[in-house]
Amino acid sequence: MITLSSDFGSPYPAAMRGVVLSQDPETRLVDVAHDLPRQDVRAAAFWTRFVLPEFPPAVHLIVVDPGVGTDRAALVVRAGDHALVAPDNGVVLPPARALADASGGGGRDGGADEDEVEVFEYDYDDPASNTFHGRDVFAPAAAAVHDVGVSEIGALDRISPADEYVDLTLPEAEVAGDVARGEVLAVDDFGNTVTSVDGTFLDGASRVRVNGEETPVGSSFASVPVGGRLVTVGSHGYVECDVNRGRGDEVFGLSVGDEVEITRVE
Amino acid sequence: MITLSSDFGSPYPAAMRGVVLSQDPETRLVDVAHDLPRQDVRAAAFWTRFVLPEFPPAVHLIVVDPGVGTDRAALVVRAGDHALVAPDNGVVLPPARALADASGGGGRDGGADEDEVEVFEYDYDDPASNTFHGRDVFAPAAAAVHDVGVSEIGALDRISPADEYVDLTLPEAEVAGDVARGEVLAVDDFGNTVTSVDGTFLDGASRVRVNGEETPVGSSFASVPVGGRLVTVGSHGYVECDVNRGRGDEVFGLSVGDEVEITRVE
Amino acid sequence: MITLSSDFGSPYPAAMRGVVLSQDPETRLVDVAHDLPRQDVRAAAFWTRFVLPEFPPAVHLIVVDPGVGTDRAALVVRAGDHALVAPDNGVVLPPARALADASGGGGRDGGADEDEVEVFEYDYDDPASNTFHGRDVFAPAAAAVHDVGVSEIGALDRISPADEYVDLTLPEAEVAGDVARGEVLAVDDFGNTVTSVDGTFLDGASRVRVNGEETPVGSSFASVPVGGRLVTVGSHGYVECDVNRGRGDEVFGLSVGDEVEITRVE
Repeated sequence: MITLSSDFGSPYPAAMRGVVLSQDPETRLVDVAHDLPRQDVRAAAFWTRFVLPEFPPAVHLIVVDPGVGTDRAALVVRAGDHALVAPDNGVVLPPARALADASGGGGRDGGADEDEVEVFEYDYDDPASNTFHGRDVFAPAAAAVHDVGVSEIGALDRISPADEYVDLTLPEAEVAGDVARGEVLAVDDFGNTVTSVDGTFLDGASRVRVNGEETPVGSSFASVPVGGRLVTVGSHGYVECDVNRGRGDEVFGLSVGDEVEITRVE
Repeated sequence: MITLSSDFGSPYPAAMRGVVLSQDPETRLVDVAHDLPRQDVRAAAFWTRFVLPEFPPAVHLIVVDPGVGTDRAALVVRAGDHALVAPDNGVVLPPARALADASGGGGRDGGADEDEVEVFEYDYDDPASNTFHGRDVFAPAAAAVHDVGVSEIGALDRISPADEYVDLTLPEAEVAGDVARGEVLAVDDFGNTVTSVDGTFLDGASRVRVNGEETPVGSSFASVPVGGRLVTVGSHGYVECDVNRGRGDEVFGLSVGDEVEITRVE
Repeated sequence: MITLSSDFGSPYPAAMRGVVLSQDPETRLVDVAHDLPRQDVRAAAFWTRFVLPEFPPAVHLIVVDPGVGTDRAALVVRAGDHALVAPDNGVVLPPARALADASGGGGRDGGADEDEVEVFEYDYDDPASNTFHGRDVFAPAAAAVHDVGVSEIGALDRISPADEYVDLTLPEAEVAGDVARGEVLAVDDFGNTVTSVDGTFLDGASRVRVNGEETPVGSSFASVPVGGRLVTVGSHGYVECDVNRGRGDEVFGLSVGDEVEITRVE
C-alpha cells in the first residue's frame, strides 16, 4: 500500500499514480490529499502527522517541495512498520515520529523511540524534468521501497544513511499557570482553527479568553447555539477555536501562524 | 466494497480510509464525494440517492453530521443487498429506499418494499473526539458491517433494531393540470438546476413558463444555441433548468430551496 | 485497469464508478482528474496526452462532452497496448497518439506509428438520459472494452471501424531563427503557464524576451529569487512562463489561448 500526499492539485497526482502502477500494476494506492496548502512544508507536516497514523503499515509518499529542481536530497525514512518518501525539507520528520509512536506506543511527538526512525538518502539519477520530481524522483522511489518492503529498505541499491537532513518540529504552546501562549497551526476546510495549545489545557475549564475575548469551552460544536463561538478539543488533540455550523477562522479573526493567547477564566 | 460520502473536504476523509484499512487492508474503498454541500442533510440525501443505486452490493458510509458530538445515534441500515452507515439525522433514508427499490424493482422512492429497509442502531463507545465521528464512530462501524457482511448485520454485537429514528423524504412537486409547483432540490457543479418536478411532467411539451418566463423544452443541452436557456429532463429524472454551456442557476436566478412554478404552454 | 478523466466535478464521477463496478466489481479504477477545464476539448486532450503515457496498459475513459445528447458518436480507440473511450469530438486523438508512441517509441505526437492507432465507433442504445452519457454510454462502453481486453476490441458486438471522426492536433509553435511564435496551451493549478513552444528552443539560452519583456531562463524555479519570473522547460516538455513560488499566469498576464512570442536574447 502506498499513500499519496501532495500540494499538486490536479491532474499531476495522476502522473505519480501511473508511474507507480507502471512498476507494479497491483500496488494499492490510497490518496491522503493533493490540496495541502501550497508549498507549505509545515502544513504538510501537520496534516500528514495527523492522518498517517490511522493507516496500517504502508509506504507514504509526501511531495510538498518548494525546492524542486535544486540539489536538495530525496529522503526515505523508516518509521516503525512504515516507510516515508519525501524531499529533504523537514516535512517528513513529524509524521515519521508519529508513525514510530503509533507503532511502538507513546503520544504525539512525545515518546517516540528514536531507534524506530531511520533516515536514508535516496540517490536519484538526473531526472527527466526539473519541475516535477513527484513524477521523476519520488514516485519511482516509493515504488522501489514498496517493492522491497519496509524491513528491507536498507538493502536498496540507491539507499545510504543520511548523515544530515533538515529537521522540523511543530511548535507547542507555552503554558504558564492559567495562560497558554501559542499559535494557529492549521485552519481546516470547515474554518475550524487549530492552535498549538494541547487539549489538556482545557481540562475542567468552562470559560476561557481567546486573545482577550471570553469564549465558552464546549464538549462539541452543538454545545453552543448555531453561529456561536466556542473552544473545544478537536480531533487533532489540540485546542480549536470554532463556531457551531460556522467558520471559526473568520469569527475569531485568525489565520495560520497567528499568535493565540488563551486564558482560563473559570 | 465500502463507498465513502461526506462533506469533509480534505484531508479528513483520508483518516476514515486509514481506519477502515487498519481493520482490513484488503477492503475495497470507492469515493462517492467529499464535497457534498456542507452540513446539508437534505443535499446529501439527494446526491447519495442519485449515485448509490449505480453500485453493486456494498456498504455505504455517509457522514454529513451537523450534530457530531451530541447524543444522536449512529444508524446501520440494511437496504436490499446493501448496507448504509450514517448519523441519525434522516440522511440515510432516501438512499436506503432507493437501494431497496434498485434491489427489488420499483421507482424513485415509489414502490420500495419496506421489508427491504431495516434500521438498526449502532452502539458506540465513548469516542476519541467529539468533533470527528467519521473517524471515531462511523468508519469503524462501516468496517464492522463490511466484516460480517450485509446479510449478517443483525448478528453484530453492537446492533439493535432502532425503535425510532429521524426520517426524511425529499419533497415532490404538486402538479395541477398544466402547472407544477415545486422547489429547487440541487444545483450541480455545472450550474444545472434540478427541481422537484418529475420529468414526466414535460411529456409532449415544447414550451413552458418557469416562474413566468417562457423557456423551450429541449431533449439535450445542444437543442438550444450556446448560452440559451432550456428545461430538460436531467439524469436524476427531474425537470432541470439549464443553459447550454452555461450556468442555469445564474441565468434562471435560482438557488437550492427556491420555489419553482412550471407551466406548460404548448 | 480503467482510468477516469472528466470535467464532471463531483459527485457525477461516482456514478461512472458504480456503473463500471456493477459490470465487474473487481475492476481496478484510477482517477486521472475530474476537474479538467469545463467543456474544453483541447485542454482535456492536452492533459490526458501528458498523463496517460505514464500508465501501464489500461482502458482510459475520457468524458469531456459539450455535445452530450446530440448524435455525435462514441469512439473506442486502440493505441498500442491501450484503449481509450471518449465522445467523437477530437479529444481522444492526441492522447491516443501519445500512447501509441509510448508503446512503440517516438516522441510527443511525432513518430507515432499510425497502424498503432485504430479508431472504432461504439454503437450505443438509446441512453437513459440525454445529459449524462458518462454514466449511460461511456462507462458501460469502457466496462465492455475492459471485459474483452484491448487486443480483442474488434471482436466486440457493438464495434465497427470509424469511417470518419473528428480529429484534433494540439498546435505547435513556429520557430524562425531566434523567435518562436506560439500560444498558451495550459495553465496549471500552480499558475505555471505552458506554451506551445518546444523546450528545445531554449537549448543554451540564458535570457529571452517573452512578448517583449526580458526574462531569465532557469533550470528550476529556485534559479530565480522567490517571486521572480523565469522561463523554463516544464515537465510537459514545453517552454513554461513561471514564477518561483508564485503564479506565472498572473505575473506574465497570460491565459489559455493567448499568443506568446519568445525571442532568444543571449
